[in-house]
Amino acid sequence: MGERFTATYRIETPKRPMDAAEAMAGEQSASTFVDVPLETPELQERHGAEIVGVTELDTVDEPSLPGAETPSGNSTATYTQAEVTLSFPFENVGVSVPQLRTTVAGNIFEIQPLSGIRLLDVEVPSEYGRECPTPQFGIEGTRELTGVADGPIVGTIVKPSVGLSPEETAGLVETLVDAGVDFIKDDELIADPPYADFEERVEAVMSVINSHEDRTGKKVMYAFNVTGTVDEMRRRHDIVRDAGGTCVMVSLNSVGLSGVRHLRSHSDLPIHGHRNGWGALSRCPHLGFEFQAYQKFWRLVGVDHLHVSGLRNKFTESDESVVASARAVQEPIPGDDGIVPVFSSGQWAGQAPDTYEVLGNTDLMYLAGGGILGHPGGPSGGVAAIKQGWEAAMADVSLSEYAETHEALRQALEVFGNRD
Amino acid sequence: MGERFTATYRIETPKRPMDAAEAMAGEQSASTFVDVPLETPELQERHGAEIVGVTELDTVDEPSLPGAETPSGNSTATYTQAEVTLSFPFENVGVSVPQLRTTVAGNIFEIQPLSGIRLLDVEVPSEYGRECPTPQFGIEGTRELTGVADGPIVGTIVKPSVGLSPEETAGLVETLVDAGVDFIKDDELIADPPYADFEERVEAVMSVINSHEDRTGKKVMYAFNVTGTVDEMRRRHDIVRDAGGTCVMVSLNSVGLSGVRHLRSHSDLPIHGHRNGWGALSRCPHLGFEFQAYQKFWRLVGVDHLHVSGLRNKFTESDESVVASARAVQEPIPGDDGIVPVFSSGQWAGQAPDTYEVLGNTDLMYLAGGGILGHPGGPSGGVAAIKQGWEAAMADVSLSEYAETHEALRQALEVFGNRD
Repeated sequence: MGERFTATYRIETPKRPMDAAEAMAGEQSASTFVDVPLETPELQERHGAEIVGVTELDTVDEPSLPGAETPSGNSTATYTQAEVTLSFPFENVGVSVPQLRTTVAGNIFEIQPLSGIRLLDVEVPSEYGRECPTPQFGIEGTRELTGVADGPIVGTIVKPSVGLSPEETAGLVETLVDAGVDFIKDDELIADPPYADFEERVEAVMSVINSHEDRTGKKVMYAFNVTGTVDEMRRRHDIVRDAGGTCVMVSLNSVGLSGVRHLRSHSDLPIHGHRNGWGALSRCPHLGFEFQAYQKFWRLVGVDHLHVSGLRNKFTESDESVVASARAVQEPIPGDDGIVPVFSSGQWAGQAPDTYEVLGNTDLMYLAGGGILGHPGGPSGGVAAIKQGWEAAMADVSLSEYAETHEALRQALEVFGNRD
Repeated sequence: MGERFTATYRIETPKRPMDAAEAMAGEQSASTFVDVPLETPELQERHGAEIVGVTELDTVDEPSLPGAETPSGNSTATYTQAEVTLSFPFENVGVSVPQLRTTVAGNIFEIQPLSGIRLLDVEVPSEYGRECPTPQFGIEGTRELTGVADGPIVGTIVKPSVGLSPEETAGLVETLVDAGVDFIKDDELIADPPYADFEERVEAVMSVINSHEDRTGKKVMYAFNVTGTVDEMRRRHDIVRDAGGTCVMVSLNSVGLSGVRHLRSHSDLPIHGHRNGWGALSRCPHLGFEFQAYQKFWRLVGVDHLHVSGLRNKFTESDESVVASARAVQEPIPGDDGIVPVFSSGQWAGQAPDTYEVLGNTDLMYLAGGGILGHPGGPSGGVAAIKQGWEAAMADVSLSEYAETHEALRQALEVFGNRD
């Protein structure tokens, strides 16, 4: 029957889970609500989605989401949670990431047999790896461009998020490159606003980064936020590349799959994927996407770096979810052998041991804002403390022990240690 | 202080609502979690988001979403729901729809002071109307292209959703145009799959539609689903236009804002916006988007028609929500005077009176699948019944009274009447 997509969901339903799975399969493939003349058994056989597995989980008394049918057939109304895996014929979609999304994550979120539906994972056929514009750089290319041969790529974010002129930004970047960061990114709130022209901003920042490279041999990677129209993104990419820049950043949910894919087709630089807006798709446990599923769509359009929040972050995501996200980003899929998870939000040396323990490698970016700028030894102390924290983690030495002989880490523990 | 954006949210918070609003304003403009040197009062004054209003609503004992801070400061822990309006300086963003989305609907969904956050509405400055590629056709252009001078534009969807060859599709289209529909659309599940080449499909379908036009003078509008990469969408648009087609359809959430905007810049045809995936952004009442907010983003990138489900639909959305969506789509925003709401899902003549009553006009598309193909008089009976239902509604005559002298409507009431 050829290659197929599979999609796995956690659902909740007032029906028998197998009946709900049948409704899901029908809605997203060859069935309609009324029999129509051309819906033949042969067409169903060739194009129908199939139920691969249904595993019942808990039952609950109240529906988690509104709008579902009410249970029938028994007097104690309950809703059953289950994990459902469907498979779809490859030829229903072909190689098309947007059509794949419509097929596995389209109207299915709104069907009445479901009072909960969350896409947990999706598996694509090998054709996708061959035909999609997969990530060009990943961890290896990023290590090469940054000159960070091993250990995490340590970085930061320009703050305040908005309001800095090109010159002020460049001044701050000078402080940060002098402090020893490997990577700097724009905040997602700035791209090309009236008060800070993109081209001027790139020129001012790259002048600092290029001078620093001339002096030290180290090229700091700066992810310029090119988020905009397709034409704007192409133009801005070229400005960055022509100024000697080595990375572009894009707000994935704001641009969308087709825009990011177009940027990738045009790009000579790694694409740093910012997932702002992700909360709207994920924060209700009974709806939306697990990151394991979500991140694959972006890799299939060629994103090299993907934000995964961080352990003990300042946002609402649990550590368990962050770990699962980071692992998923490092796992191979058709087209790439894993890309770069970007840890960010409330990060400092303190989370290094746990982060290393759960991943078992340092093929990641580790971004700190306050953890660098708020360090008592200044930004260079902040960067040093993070690098020392990772050294300790990789050597399997506790932070407090390592701090006995490493001053920057000692200061960080003193100032930030009560946060955790 | 110049023009500003405003964004209105319904939130839930363990804090005082005013404190939560301050956290929201800070996160999405000029504040960070740690004081940084360049965050001056002048910068705050110029770039900070402002709280326009906070209206307290209910309190609840349990947080609606996980991950929020726990309440402090009183022993009876409660979470307060409130409506919050923020305003943002225009110059923080400039004219950029993706950056606008990042600003009002980005990381804000994940901040710890909120246990619920839903974007209710967004207002953009008049610059957006002047500089964005706003809808080219809207209701007037669509009426002109379809030749439907008044009353709703009555249409249908090709079913089964997947699996039909170009010839089979054209055969069904022949039946449908002979039945008198004004509009036909692809299902969102088909675009350019291996089993039905897009170009062949357009040729086969447009041959039927053009012949019908030659015979009758009536040009049926067919919305071909061009969803794909930017290059694919441009190419497919040109194929449709060159074959005499008059509409392209796109799955908005699968393509994204930048891709749709690019299609619009290139397009000579109305863009039919399909919102599959909308459920993931909306179905949890405490998270995501109200359609009033969501639809504006798509109009600002030039979409002419927008799906709004329908009264007593087969999906999970309430009638109240459908009505609010349809009204919002018809209301002016900077750049357009309202576009075309597309009613679809379980529609037949039965919902015509209520739909007309709540909108007070017929500047809409009204799509029926089973309501046309499942009519006992065949597709022509189905189309006639829907048109008769709307005639009755516009004449303020009950369906049952009108059916006494209109056979197709009488049959529809008999067959579909027990659905409602």
